[in-house]
Amino acid sequence: MSDWGSDTVSDTTRQFDVVQVRGGSRRTQPDRAATEEPLEIRLHGQSFAVIMRTPGHDRELSAGFLLSERVISTSDDIGAIAHCADADAENIVNVTLTDESILDRTLADRRQVTTNSSCGLCGRRTIESLIVSLPPLAPRWSIDPSILIALPNRLRAAQAAFDMTGGLHAAALFACDGNLVEVAEDVGRHNAVDKVIGRMLLREALPLSSHILCVSGRTSYEIVQKAVIAGIPLVAAVSAPSSLAIDLAAASGLTLVGFVRGDSFNIYTHPERIAAT
Amino acid sequence: MSDWGSDTVSDTTRQFDVVQVRGGSRRTQPDRAATEEPLEIRLHGQSFAVIMRTPGHDRELSAGFLLSERVISTSDDIGAIAHCADADAENIVNVTLTDESILDRTLADRRQVTTNSSCGLCGRRTIESLIVSLPPLAPRWSIDPSILIALPNRLRAAQAAFDMTGGLHAAALFACDGNLVEVAEDVGRHNAVDKVIGRMLLREALPLSSHILCVSGRTSYEIVQKAVIAGIPLVAAVSAPSSLAIDLAAASGLTLVGFVRGDSFNIYTHPERIAAT
Repeated sequence: MSDWGSDTVSDTTRQFDVVQVRGGSRRTQPDRAATEEPLEIRLHGQSFAVIMRTPGHDRELSAGFLLSERVISTSDDIGAIAHCADADAENIVNVTLTDESILDRTLADRRQVTTNSSCGLCGRRTIESLIVSLPPLAPRWSIDPSILIALPNRLRAAQAAFDMTGGLHAAALFACDGNLVEVAEDVGRHNAVDKVIGRMLLREALPLSSHILCVSGRTSYEIVQKAVIAGIPLVAAVSAPSSLAIDLAAASGLTLVGFVRGDSFNIYTHPERIAAT
Repeated sequence: MSDWGSDTVSDTTRQFDVVQVRGGSRRTQPDRAATEEPLEIRLHGQSFAVIMRTPGHDRELSAGFLLSERVISTSDDIGAIAHCADADAENIVNVTLTDESILDRTLADRRQVTTNSSCGLCGRRTIESLIVSLPPLAPRWSIDPSILIALPNRLRAAQAAFDMTGGLHAAALFACDGNLVEVAEDVGRHNAVDKVIGRMLLREALPLSSHILCVSGRTSYEIVQKAVIAGIPLVAAVSAPSSLAIDLAAASGLTLVGFVRGDSFNIYTHPERIAAT
Protein backbone atom coordinates (compact mmCIF):
# COMPACT_ATOMS: atom_id res chain seq x y z
CA MET A 1 0.00 0.00 0.00
CA SER A 2 2.74 2.41 0.85
CA ASP A 3 6.22 3.15 -0.26
CA TRP A 4 8.71 3.76 2.55
CA GLY A 5 10.17 6.64 0.59
CA SER A 6 6.87 8.25 -0.35
CA ASP A 7 6.41 10.42 2.75
CA THR A 8 7.10 14.10 2.50
CA VAL A 9 10.87 14.39 2.82
CA SER A 10 11.25 14.27 6.55
CA ASP A 11 13.02 16.80 8.63
CA THR A 12 14.32 14.59 11.41
CA THR A 13 16.62 17.28 12.79
CA ARG A 14 16.55 21.05 13.13
CA GLN A 15 19.36 23.54 13.46
CA PHE A 16 19.73 25.79 16.51
CA ASP A 17 22.33 28.24 17.71
CA VAL A 18 23.91 26.67 20.79
CA VAL A 19 26.31 28.13 23.34
CA GLN A 20 29.00 25.48 23.67
CA VAL A 21 30.87 25.61 26.96
CA ARG A 22 34.08 23.56 26.82
CA GLY A 23 36.06 24.05 30.02
CA GLY A 24 36.81 27.79 30.16
CA SER A 25 35.84 28.49 26.54
CA ARG A 26 32.40 29.55 25.43
CA ARG A 27 31.25 30.09 21.88
CA THR A 28 28.01 30.11 19.94
CA GLN A 29 27.80 27.52 17.19
CA PRO A 30 25.03 26.09 15.04
CA ASP A 31 24.10 22.57 16.14
CA ARG A 32 21.26 20.16 15.41
CA ALA A 33 18.51 18.68 17.61
CA ALA A 34 16.09 15.83 16.91
CA THR A 35 12.78 17.17 15.64
CA GLU A 36 9.82 16.58 17.95
CA GLU A 37 6.33 17.55 16.81
CA PRO A 38 2.83 16.39 17.68
CA LEU A 39 1.00 14.10 15.26
CA GLU A 40 -2.76 13.96 15.50
CA ILE A 41 -4.24 10.68 14.29
CA ARG A 42 -7.85 10.94 13.18
CA LEU A 43 -10.29 8.13 12.43
CA HIS A 44 -12.80 9.19 9.77
CA GLY A 45 -12.06 12.80 10.63
CA GLN A 46 -12.48 12.40 14.39
CA SER A 47 -9.48 13.00 16.62
CA PHE A 48 -8.29 9.71 18.11
CA ALA A 49 -4.77 10.28 19.44
CA VAL A 50 -1.99 12.81 19.65
CA ILE A 51 1.55 11.45 19.67
CA MET A 52 4.76 13.43 20.10
CA ARG A 53 6.97 12.16 17.32
CA THR A 54 9.74 12.89 14.83
CA PRO A 55 8.12 13.74 11.47
CA GLY A 56 8.53 11.25 8.67
CA HIS A 57 6.83 7.96 7.91
CA ASP A 58 3.66 9.27 9.53
CA ARG A 59 1.46 6.85 7.61
CA GLU A 60 3.54 3.89 8.83
CA LEU A 61 3.53 5.27 12.37
CA SER A 62 -0.24 5.66 12.28
CA ALA A 63 -0.72 2.12 10.96
CA GLY A 64 1.63 0.63 13.56
CA PHE A 65 0.04 2.65 16.35
CA LEU A 66 -3.49 1.55 15.41
CA LEU A 67 -2.27 -2.06 15.29
CA SER A 68 -0.62 -1.76 18.72
CA GLU A 69 -3.79 -0.18 20.10
CA ARG A 70 -5.69 -3.08 18.57
CA VAL A 71 -8.02 -0.82 16.63
CA ILE A 72 -7.04 -2.73 13.50
CA SER A 73 -5.71 -6.25 13.15
CA THR A 74 -4.66 -6.50 9.50
CA SER A 75 -3.81 -4.16 6.64
CA ASP A 76 -7.20 -5.06 5.15
CA ASP A 77 -8.83 -3.00 7.89
CA ILE A 78 -7.26 0.15 6.45
CA GLY A 79 -9.04 1.87 3.61
CA ALA A 80 -6.79 4.91 3.33
CA ILE A 81 -4.18 6.79 5.35
CA ALA A 82 -3.40 10.34 4.29
CA HIS A 83 -2.25 13.65 5.65
CA CYS A 84 -5.09 16.13 5.98
CA ALA A 85 -5.61 18.92 3.50
CA ASP A 86 -5.99 21.55 6.27
CA ALA A 87 -3.41 24.06 7.34
CA ASP A 88 -0.78 22.42 9.58
CA ALA A 89 -1.64 19.30 7.62
CA GLU A 90 1.80 17.77 7.99
CA ASN A 91 0.92 17.06 11.61
CA ILE A 92 -2.50 15.49 11.03
CA VAL A 93 -3.15 12.07 9.51
CA ASN A 94 -6.64 10.82 8.75
CA VAL A 95 -7.29 7.08 8.62
CA THR A 96 -10.32 5.59 6.92
CA LEU A 97 -11.24 2.06 7.97
CA THR A 98 -12.79 -0.40 5.55
CA ASP A 99 -15.29 -1.62 8.10
CA GLU A 100 -17.35 1.10 9.81
CA SER A 101 -18.18 -1.29 12.66
CA ILE A 102 -14.53 -1.14 13.76
CA LEU A 103 -14.87 2.62 14.03
CA ASP A 104 -18.12 2.37 15.95
CA ARG A 105 -16.66 -0.21 18.33
CA THR A 106 -13.51 1.85 18.88
CA LEU A 107 -15.40 5.03 19.63
CA ALA A 108 -17.93 3.16 21.75
CA ASP A 109 -15.04 1.87 23.85
CA ARG A 110 -14.32 5.55 24.36
CA ARG A 111 -10.66 4.78 24.27
CA GLN A 112 -9.77 8.36 23.79
CA VAL A 113 -6.10 7.58 23.47
CA THR A 114 -4.01 10.59 24.27
CA THR A 115 -0.39 9.74 24.63
CA ASN A 116 0.42 13.28 25.56
CA SER A 117 -2.78 14.67 26.84
CA SER A 118 -1.24 18.04 27.65
CA CYS A 119 -0.97 18.51 23.96
CA GLY A 120 -4.44 18.22 22.58
CA LEU A 121 -3.85 20.19 19.43
CA CYS A 122 -1.14 20.60 16.90
CA GLY A 123 2.30 22.15 16.90
CA ARG A 124 2.48 25.86 17.36
CA ARG A 125 -1.01 26.28 18.68
CA THR A 126 -0.17 24.13 21.68
CA ILE A 127 3.00 26.01 22.41
CA GLU A 128 1.27 29.34 22.00
CA SER A 129 -1.54 28.33 24.32
CA LEU A 130 0.98 27.38 26.99
CA ILE A 131 2.81 30.68 26.58
CA VAL A 132 -0.41 32.62 26.85
CA SER A 133 -1.45 30.95 30.06
CA LEU A 134 1.91 30.91 31.82
CA PRO A 135 4.04 34.01 32.30
CA PRO A 136 7.69 33.53 31.29
CA LEU A 137 9.98 32.44 34.09
CA ALA A 138 11.37 35.59 35.64
CA PRO A 139 14.09 34.54 38.14
CA ARG A 140 17.27 36.44 37.41
CA TRP A 141 19.86 34.51 39.38
CA SER A 142 22.81 32.93 37.66
CA ILE A 143 25.15 30.11 38.63
CA ASP A 144 28.77 29.36 38.01
CA PRO A 145 29.52 26.64 35.42
CA SER A 146 31.43 24.75 38.13
CA ILE A 147 28.15 24.18 39.99
CA LEU A 148 26.43 22.97 36.85
CA ILE A 149 29.04 20.44 35.79
CA ALA A 150 29.00 18.85 39.25
CA LEU A 151 25.27 18.00 39.08
CA PRO A 152 25.32 14.80 36.98
CA ASN A 153 27.80 13.12 39.32
CA ARG A 154 25.67 14.06 42.32
CA LEU A 155 22.60 12.72 40.57
CA ARG A 156 24.43 9.51 39.68
CA ALA A 157 25.72 9.08 43.24
CA ALA A 158 22.19 9.39 44.60
CA GLN A 159 20.89 7.01 41.94
CA ALA A 160 23.67 4.45 42.32
CA ALA A 161 22.46 3.85 45.86
CA PHE A 162 19.39 2.10 44.58
CA ASP A 163 19.61 1.45 40.87
CA MET A 164 21.15 -1.96 40.36
CA THR A 165 19.47 -2.56 37.04
CA GLY A 166 20.67 0.02 34.52
CA GLY A 167 16.98 0.47 33.78
CA LEU A 168 15.90 3.43 35.89
CA HIS A 169 15.80 7.08 34.88
CA ALA A 170 16.55 9.65 37.57
CA ALA A 171 15.47 13.23 38.16
CA ALA A 172 16.78 15.49 40.91
CA LEU A 173 16.06 18.93 42.21
CA PHE A 174 19.05 20.98 43.28
CA ALA A 175 19.18 24.33 45.03
CA CYS A 176 20.97 26.94 42.95
CA ASP A 177 24.07 26.48 45.13
CA GLY A 178 24.25 22.89 43.85
CA ASN A 179 22.93 21.16 46.95
CA LEU A 180 20.68 18.14 46.32
CA VAL A 181 17.10 18.69 47.50
CA GLU A 182 15.16 15.68 46.17
CA VAL A 183 15.82 12.74 43.85
CA ALA A 184 13.52 10.10 42.35
CA GLU A 185 13.90 7.14 40.01
CA ASP A 186 11.46 5.53 37.66
CA VAL A 187 11.29 3.42 34.51
CA GLY A 188 9.55 6.45 33.01
CA ARG A 189 11.60 9.62 32.92
CA HIS A 190 8.48 11.80 33.02
CA ASN A 191 7.42 10.00 36.17
CA ALA A 192 10.74 10.68 37.88
CA VAL A 193 10.19 14.40 37.22
CA ASP A 194 6.57 14.22 38.43
CA LYS A 195 7.72 12.50 41.62
CA VAL A 196 10.21 15.20 42.64
CA ILE A 197 7.89 18.05 41.65
CA GLY A 198 4.92 16.34 43.32
CA ARG A 199 6.97 15.97 46.46
CA MET A 200 7.64 19.71 46.54
CA LEU A 201 4.01 20.46 45.73
CA LEU A 202 2.86 18.42 48.71
CA ARG A 203 5.38 20.33 50.83
CA GLU A 204 3.77 23.54 49.56
CA ALA A 205 7.15 24.65 48.20
CA LEU A 206 6.02 25.74 44.72
CA PRO A 207 6.97 27.72 42.66
CA LEU A 208 10.48 26.26 42.57
CA SER A 209 12.01 29.51 41.37
CA SER A 210 15.42 29.00 42.97
CA HIS A 211 15.82 25.37 41.89
CA ILE A 212 17.54 23.43 39.12
CA LEU A 213 16.05 20.25 37.64
CA CYS A 214 18.64 17.70 36.53
CA VAL A 215 17.61 14.65 34.50
CA SER A 216 19.64 11.55 33.64
CA GLY A 217 18.52 11.28 30.03
CA ARG A 218 17.12 13.35 27.19
CA THR A 219 14.87 16.38 27.44
CA SER A 220 11.53 16.28 25.66
CA TYR A 221 8.79 18.86 25.37
CA GLU A 222 6.99 17.26 28.30
CA ILE A 223 9.96 17.54 30.67
CA VAL A 224 10.33 21.26 29.92
CA GLN A 225 6.59 21.73 30.27
CA LYS A 226 6.60 20.12 33.72
CA ALA A 227 9.49 22.38 34.79
CA VAL A 228 7.76 25.53 33.49
CA ILE A 229 4.52 24.67 35.30
CA ALA A 230 6.47 24.15 38.54
CA GLY A 231 8.33 27.44 38.06
CA ILE A 232 11.80 25.88 37.64
CA PRO A 233 14.00 28.27 35.59
CA LEU A 234 16.90 25.91 34.77
CA VAL A 235 16.88 22.35 33.41
CA ALA A 236 20.15 20.47 32.96
CA ALA A 237 20.25 17.12 31.17
CA VAL A 238 22.98 14.57 30.66
CA SER A 239 21.79 13.96 27.11
CA ALA A 240 20.16 15.76 24.17
CA PRO A 241 17.06 17.98 24.03
CA SER A 242 14.39 17.71 21.33
CA SER A 243 13.53 20.62 19.04
CA LEU A 244 10.22 21.22 20.81
CA ALA A 245 11.93 21.20 24.22
CA ILE A 246 14.20 23.98 22.93
CA ASP A 247 11.28 25.93 21.42
CA LEU A 248 9.24 25.75 24.62
CA ALA A 249 12.23 26.63 26.83
CA ALA A 250 13.06 29.63 24.63
CA ALA A 251 9.46 30.88 24.74
CA SER A 252 9.09 30.28 28.50
CA GLY A 253 12.23 32.01 29.74
CA LEU A 254 13.73 28.69 30.85
CA THR A 255 17.47 28.02 30.62
CA LEU A 256 17.92 24.63 28.93
CA VAL A 257 21.27 22.88 29.19
CA GLY A 258 22.21 19.53 27.64
CA PHE A 259 25.11 17.12 27.24
CA VAL A 260 26.56 17.97 30.66
CA ARG A 261 29.64 15.77 30.51
CA GLY A 262 32.99 16.35 32.19
CA ASP A 263 33.59 20.11 32.14
CA SER A 264 31.52 20.63 28.98
CA PHE A 265 27.89 21.37 28.26
CA ASN A 266 25.63 23.06 25.72
CA ILE A 267 23.30 25.95 26.55
CA TYR A 268 20.30 25.92 24.24
CA THR A 269 18.26 28.80 25.62
CA HIS A 270 18.58 31.77 27.96
CA PRO A 271 22.33 31.50 28.65
CA GLU A 272 22.17 34.50 30.98
CA ARG A 273 21.64 32.17 33.96
CA ILE A 274 25.07 30.58 33.45
CA ALA A 275 27.80 32.99 34.49
CA ALA A 276 30.71 33.50 32.10
CA THR A 277 33.91 32.35 33.76
CA MET B 1 1.23 17.04 53.63
CA SER B 2 3.33 14.01 52.93
CA ASP B 3 6.53 12.49 54.16
CA TRP B 4 8.89 11.31 51.41
CA GLY B 5 9.60 8.16 53.38
CA SER B 6 6.00 7.38 54.24
CA ASP B 7 5.07 5.39 51.13
CA THR B 8 4.89 1.66 51.35
CA VAL B 9 8.51 0.49 51.18
CA SER B 10 9.03 0.51 47.47
CA ASP B 11 10.23 -2.38 45.45
CA THR B 12 12.09 -0.55 42.71
CA THR B 13 13.74 -3.73 41.39
CA ARG B 14 12.79 -7.38 41.03
CA GLN B 15 14.96 -10.47 40.78
CA PHE B 16 14.89 -12.75 37.74
CA ASP B 17 16.89 -15.76 36.60
CA VAL B 18 18.88 -14.59 33.59
CA VAL B 19 20.95 -16.59 31.11
CA GLN B 20 24.19 -14.62 30.88
CA VAL B 21 26.08 -15.20 27.64
CA ARG B 22 29.66 -13.94 27.86
CA GLY B 23 31.57 -14.89 24.73
CA GLY B 24 31.45 -18.69 24.60
CA SER B 25 30.24 -19.15 28.19
CA ARG B 26 26.59 -19.37 29.18
CA ARG B 27 25.25 -19.63 32.69
CA THR B 28 22.05 -18.90 34.54
CA GLN B 29 22.35 -16.31 37.29
CA PRO B 30 19.94 -14.26 39.37
CA ASP B 31 19.88 -10.63 38.25
CA ARG B 32 17.64 -7.62 38.89
CA ALA B 33 15.39 -5.56 36.63
CA ALA B 34 13.68 -2.22 37.27
CA THR B 35 10.11 -2.75 38.43
CA GLU B 36 7.43 -1.50 36.03
CA GLU B 37 3.77 -1.65 37.07
CA PRO B 38 0.68 0.30 36.08
CA LEU B 39 -0.65 2.94 38.44
CA GLU B 40 -4.27 3.94 38.08
CA ILE B 41 -4.99 7.48 39.25
CA ARG B 42 -8.61 8.05 40.25
CA LEU B 43 -10.35 11.35 40.92
CA HIS B 44 -13.10 10.90 43.51
CA GLY B 45 -13.19 7.21 42.65
CA GLN B 46 -13.39 7.67 38.87
CA SER B 47 -10.54 6.41 36.74
CA PHE B 48 -8.60 9.34 35.30
CA ALA B 49 -5.26 7.98 34.08
CA VAL B 50 -3.12 4.88 33.96
CA ILE B 51 0.64 5.38 34.07
CA MET B 52 3.31 2.71 33.73
CA ARG B 53 5.67 3.46 36.60
CA THR B 54 8.11 2.12 39.16
CA PRO B 55 6.23 1.68 42.46
CA GLY B 56 7.12 4.02 45.30
CA HIS B 57 6.19 7.64 46.02
CA ASP B 58 2.87 7.06 44.29
CA ARG B 59 1.24 9.94 46.12
CA GLU B 60 3.96 12.33 44.99
CA LEU B 61 3.75 10.97 41.45
CA SER B 62 -0.02 11.46 41.41
CA ALA B 63 0.28 15.02 42.74
CA GLY B 64 3.00 15.91 40.22
CA PHE B 65 1.07 14.31 37.38
CA LEU B 66 -2.13 16.20 38.20
CA LEU B 67 -0.12 19.43 38.37
CA SER B 68 1.51 18.74 34.99
CA GLU B 69 -1.88 17.93 33.50
CA ARG B 70 -3.11 21.21 34.99
CA VAL B 71 -5.97 19.53 36.83
CA ILE B 72 -4.67 21.18 40.01
CA SER B 73 -2.58 24.30 40.41
CA THR B 74 -1.62 24.30 44.09
CA SER B 75 -1.40 21.85 46.96
CA ASP B 76 -4.54 23.49 48.36
CA ASP B 77 -6.52 21.86 45.55
CA ILE B 78 -5.76 18.42 47.01
CA GLY B 79 -7.97 17.17 49.81
CA ALA B 80 -6.48 13.70 50.15
CA ILE B 81 -4.32 11.28 48.20
CA ALA B 82 -4.41 7.65 49.27
CA HIS B 83 -3.99 4.15 47.92
CA CYS B 84 -7.31 2.38 47.49
CA ALA B 85 -8.53 -0.21 49.93
CA ASP B 86 -9.41 -2.69 47.14
CA ALA B 87 -7.44 -5.73 46.15
CA ASP B 88 -4.43 -4.73 44.02
CA ALA B 89 -4.67 -1.49 45.96
CA GLU B 90 -0.96 -0.79 45.74
CA ASN B 91 -1.51 0.10 42.07
CA ILE B 92 -4.50 2.41 42.54
CA VAL B 93 -4.38 5.88 44.06
CA ASN B 94 -7.52 7.91 44.70
CA VAL B 95 -7.31 11.69 44.83
CA THR B 96 -9.96 13.85 46.45
CA LEU B 97 -10.02 17.47 45.38
CA THR B 98 -11.04 20.24 47.77
CA ASP B 99 -13.13 21.96 45.14
CA GLU B 100 -15.69 19.77 43.38
CA SER B 101 -15.87 22.28 40.52
CA ILE B 102 -12.32 21.31 39.51
CA LEU B 103 -13.47 17.72 39.22
CA ASP B 104 -16.54 18.70 37.21
CA ARG B 105 -14.47 20.86 34.88
CA THR B 106 -11.85 18.16 34.42
CA LEU B 107 -14.39 15.47 33.62
CA ALA B 108 -16.37 17.84 31.41
CA ASP B 109 -13.21 18.44 29.42
CA ARG B 110 -13.32 14.69 28.92
CA ARG B 111 -9.60 14.65 29.13
CA GLN B 112 -9.53 10.94 29.61
CA VAL B 113 -5.79 10.89 30.04
CA THR B 114 -4.43 7.49 29.29
CA THR B 115 -0.68 7.48 29.04
CA ASN B 116 -0.70 3.85 28.09
CA SER B 117 -4.13 3.20 26.79
CA SER B 118 -3.36 -0.43 26.01
CA CYS B 119 -3.30 -0.93 29.70
CA GLY B 120 -6.64 0.20 31.02
CA LEU B 121 -6.60 -1.84 34.17
CA CYS B 122 -4.15 -2.92 36.74
CA GLY B 123 -1.14 -5.21 36.74
CA ARG B 124 -1.85 -8.86 36.40
CA ARG B 125 -5.31 -8.44 34.97
CA THR B 126 -3.92 -6.59 31.98
CA ILE B 127 -1.26 -9.17 31.34
CA GLU B 128 -3.75 -11.99 31.69
CA SER B 129 -6.16 -10.36 29.27
CA LEU B 130 -3.40 -10.03 26.70
CA ILE B 131 -2.42 -13.67 27.13
CA VAL B 132 -6.01 -14.79 26.75
CA SER B 133 -6.51 -12.91 23.52
CA LEU B 134 -3.17 -13.67 21.87
CA PRO B 135 -1.82 -17.18 21.46
CA PRO B 136 1.82 -17.54 22.57
CA LEU B 137 4.40 -17.01 19.85
CA ALA B 138 5.06 -20.40 18.32
CA PRO B 139 8.02 -20.01 15.93
CA ARG B 140 10.66 -22.61 16.73
CA TRP B 141 13.68 -21.32 14.85
CA SER B 142 16.87 -20.46 16.65
CA ILE B 143 19.82 -18.27 15.77
CA ASP B 144 23.50 -18.38 16.50
CA PRO B 145 24.78 -15.89 19.12
CA SER B 146 27.16 -14.51 16.48
CA ILE B 147 24.15 -13.21 14.53
CA LEU B 148 22.67 -11.62 17.62
CA ILE B 149 25.77 -9.76 18.76
CA ALA B 150 26.19 -8.22 15.30
CA LEU B 151 22.77 -6.53 15.36
CA PRO B 152 23.49 -3.42 17.49
CA ASN B 153 26.36 -2.38 15.22
CA ARG B 154 24.17 -2.81 12.15
CA LEU B 155 21.42 -0.78 13.82
CA ARG B 156 23.93 1.92 14.77
CA ALA B 157 25.39 2.03 11.27
CA ALA B 158 21.92 2.53 9.79
CA GLN B 159 21.13 5.16 12.42
CA ALA B 160 24.45 6.99 12.12
CA ALA B 161 23.51 7.83 8.55
CA PHE B 162 20.89 10.27 9.73
CA ASP B 163 21.13 10.85 13.49
CA MET B 164 23.40 13.83 14.06
CA THR B 165 21.79 14.80 17.34
CA GLY B 166 22.28 12.02 19.86
CA GLY B 167 18.58 12.46 20.48
CA LEU B 168 16.89 9.83 18.34
CA HIS B 169 15.91 6.31 19.32
CA ALA B 170 16.16 3.63 16.65
CA ALA B 171 14.31 0.39 16.02
CA ALA B 172 15.14 -2.11 13.30
CA LEU B 173 13.68 -5.31 11.96
CA PHE B 174 16.14 -8.00 10.97
CA ALA B 175 15.55 -11.29 9.21
CA CYS B 176 16.61 -14.23 11.35
CA ASP B 177 19.80 -14.53 9.27
CA GLY B 178 20.77 -11.06 10.55
CA ASN B 179 19.98 -9.07 7.42
CA LEU B 180 18.48 -5.63 7.98
CA VAL B 181 14.91 -5.33 6.72
CA GLU B 182 13.69 -1.95 8.00
CA VAL B 183 14.92 0.76 10.35
CA ALA B 184 13.25 3.86 11.79
CA GLU B 185 14.23 6.65 14.14
CA ASP B 186 12.16 8.81 16.42
CA VAL B 187 12.39 10.91 19.57
CA GLY B 188 9.95 8.35 21.01
CA ARG B 189 11.21 4.80 21.15
CA HIS B 190 7.68 3.40 20.95
CA ASN B 191 7.16 5.40 17.76
CA ALA B 192 10.29 3.96 16.15
CA VAL B 193 8.86 0.47 16.78
CA ASP B 194 5.42 1.48 15.47
CA LYS B 195 7.03 2.87 12.31
CA VAL B 196 8.87 -0.33 11.37
CA ILE B 197 5.94 -2.57 12.27
CA GLY B 198 3.48 -0.23 10.50
CA ARG B 199 5.66 -0.35 7.43
CA MET B 200 5.46 -4.15 7.37
CA LEU B 201 1.72 -4.05 8.06
CA LEU B 202 1.17 -1.79 5.04
CA ARG B 203 3.26 -4.26 3.01
CA GLU B 204 0.89 -7.00 4.22
CA ALA B 205 3.88 -8.84 5.69
CA LEU B 206 2.44 -9.64 9.13
CA PRO B 207 2.84 -11.75 11.21
CA LEU B 208 6.59 -11.14 11.42
CA SER B 209 7.29 -14.64 12.64
CA SER B 210 10.76 -14.96 11.15
CA HIS B 211 11.96 -11.52 12.24
CA ILE B 212 13.98 -10.02 15.07
CA LEU B 213 13.23 -6.59 16.52
CA CYS B 214 16.31 -4.69 17.72
CA VAL B 215 15.95 -1.47 19.74
CA SER B 216 18.61 1.06 20.65
CA GLY B 217 17.48 1.61 24.23
CA ARG B 218 15.57 -0.07 27.02
CA THR B 219 12.68 -2.52 26.71
CA SER B 220 9.39 -1.63 28.37
CA TYR B 221 6.11 -3.51 28.58
CA GLU B 222 4.82 -1.55 25.59
CA ILE B 223 7.71 -2.50 23.31
CA VAL B 224 7.20 -6.20 24.06
CA GLN B 225 3.46 -5.81 23.60
CA LYS B 226 3.95 -4.26 20.16
CA ALA B 227 6.27 -7.12 19.18
CA VAL B 228 3.81 -9.77 20.40
CA ILE B 229 0.92 -8.21 18.49
CA ALA B 230 3.05 -8.16 15.31
CA GLY B 231 4.08 -11.80 15.85
CA ILE B 232 7.80 -11.07 16.37
CA PRO B 233 9.32 -13.87 18.48
CA LEU B 234 12.66 -12.25 19.40
CA VAL B 235 13.43 -8.80 20.78
CA ALA B 236 17.03 -7.71 21.33
CA ALA B 237 17.86 -4.48 23.12
CA VAL B 238 21.08 -2.62 23.71
CA SER B 239 19.96 -1.74 27.23
CA ALA B 240 17.87 -3.11 30.12
CA PRO B 241 14.34 -4.56 30.17
CA SER B 242 11.72 -3.68 32.78
CA SER B 243 10.14 -6.29 35.04
CA LEU B 244 6.84 -6.12 33.16
CA ALA B 245 8.60 -6.50 29.82
CA ILE B 246 10.12 -9.72 31.15
CA ASP B 247 6.79 -10.94 32.57
CA LEU B 248 4.95 -10.31 29.31
CA ALA B 249 7.71 -11.86 27.19
CA ALA B 250 7.75 -14.96 29.40
CA ALA B 251 3.98 -15.37 29.18
CA SER B 252 3.87 -14.68 25.42
CA GLY B 253 6.55 -17.10 24.28
CA LEU B 254 8.82 -14.23 23.22
CA THR B 255 12.61 -14.42 23.56
CA LEU B 256 13.78 -11.24 25.27
CA VAL B 257 17.45 -10.33 25.12
CA GLY B 258 19.08 -7.29 26.72
CA PHE B 259 22.45 -5.60 27.20
CA VAL B 260 23.77 -6.76 23.82
CA ARG B 261 27.29 -5.34 24.06
CA GLY B 262 30.47 -6.69 22.48
CA ASP B 263 30.17 -10.49 22.56
CA SER B 264 27.95 -10.51 25.65
CA PHE B 265 24.22 -10.38 26.26
CA ASN B 266 21.54 -11.48 28.72
CA ILE B 267 18.63 -13.76 27.81
CA TYR B 268 15.65 -13.02 30.04
CA THR B 269 13.03 -15.35 28.58
CA HIS B 270 12.73 -18.33 26.23
CA PRO B 271 16.46 -18.92 25.66
CA GLU B 272 15.69 -21.82 23.30
CA ARG B 273 15.79 -19.44 20.32
CA ILE B 274 19.47 -18.68 20.95
CA ALA B 275 21.61 -21.68 19.97
CA ALA B 276 24.23 -22.82 22.45
CA THR B 277 27.67 -22.45 20.91
